[in-house]
Amino acid sequence: MPGTTIYRTELSRDWIDYNDHLRDAYYGVIFSTATDALMDHHLGLDPEYRARTRCTLYSLESHIHWLREVKFGVTVEVDAHVLAYDSKRLHLALDLRVAGSSTVAAAAEYMLLHYRQGENAGAASFPPDVLAKIEALKAADGGVEWAGPRSRALTLAKR
Amino acid sequence: MPGTTIYRTELSRDWIDYNDHLRDAYYGVIFSTATDALMDHHLGLDPEYRARTRCTLYSLESHIHWLREVKFGVTVEVDAHVLAYDSKRLHLALDLRVAGSSTVAAAAEYMLLHYRQGENAGAASFPPDVLAKIEALKAADGGVEWAGPRSRALTLAKR
Repeated sequence: MPGTTIYRTELSRDWIDYNDHLRDAYYGVIFSTATDALMDHHLGLDPEYRARTRCTLYSLESHIHWLREVKFGVTVEVDAHVLAYDSKRLHLALDLRVAGSSTVAAAAEYMLLHYRQGENAGAASFPPDVLAKIEALKAADGGVEWAGPRSRALTLAKR
Repeated sequence: MPGTTIYRTELSRDWIDYNDHLRDAYYGVIFSTATDALMDHHLGLDPEYRARTRCTLYSLESHIHWLREVKFGVTVEVDAHVLAYDSKRLHLALDLRVAGSSTVAAAAEYMLLHYRQGENAGAASFPPDVLAKIEALKAADGGVEWAGPRSRALTLAKR
């Protein structure tokens, strides 16, 4: 289930830590910037929309599994899957891969809330055209059901 | 259950996003840097230890709940709790607060693995003195049991 590739970036030298690999938190920075790309280019939640409606997406939760080290010098890509959505929320799976590889280096889930800022601040319903884009992104996975409980609780049970 | 305050930082202007608050991923950068502080100052896993043993901590999983916006201009602090540990792993809860406030702005869990790099790379047992420091940090919470299922699965069930 390859999903839709939404973002590609080289690694910044500043993102490499004393363990000589991409620091855990910068996978999160890449996922966050990838979500901006998804908003701008796939969901119609671009800067013009945000300025006009004062609505944006807020992150409620994330769950990241770091699966492989990523070293400086490569380009990485992020694939998006829509796991679920309702009138105000979007539950995404995001996979980070080295470009040209199908091996997932980090698998994340994000729960995002459509939120109105300023006066009348609060959770806001997606407009119909945005819901249609979310549905189209979900359909791009071919309607395959999500395979596994990626959001299982953290536990010290034997791996 | 205040935990042990392990880190304090001002916010960088670079961490503020187009929604005019701390970008989701930079909570993660703060948690990651706080974990370095925990390693260096509380667990005996400092640069000298890492150079001598080639052992370090790798992040396996994180689960972050973003609870409140944080605006530019404040100082934030991170409190650590040891939820559980075994011979090779450490399950931490980290809370991010604005300094001087007891209100948690983001609640995170991290599962960390003690890992040997280089030759004979792989998961490695904590040495006894490090285990003693982990136990001492856990005891600093007064032995209070962890209150809630912070690592519950992400779901679109009603909040």
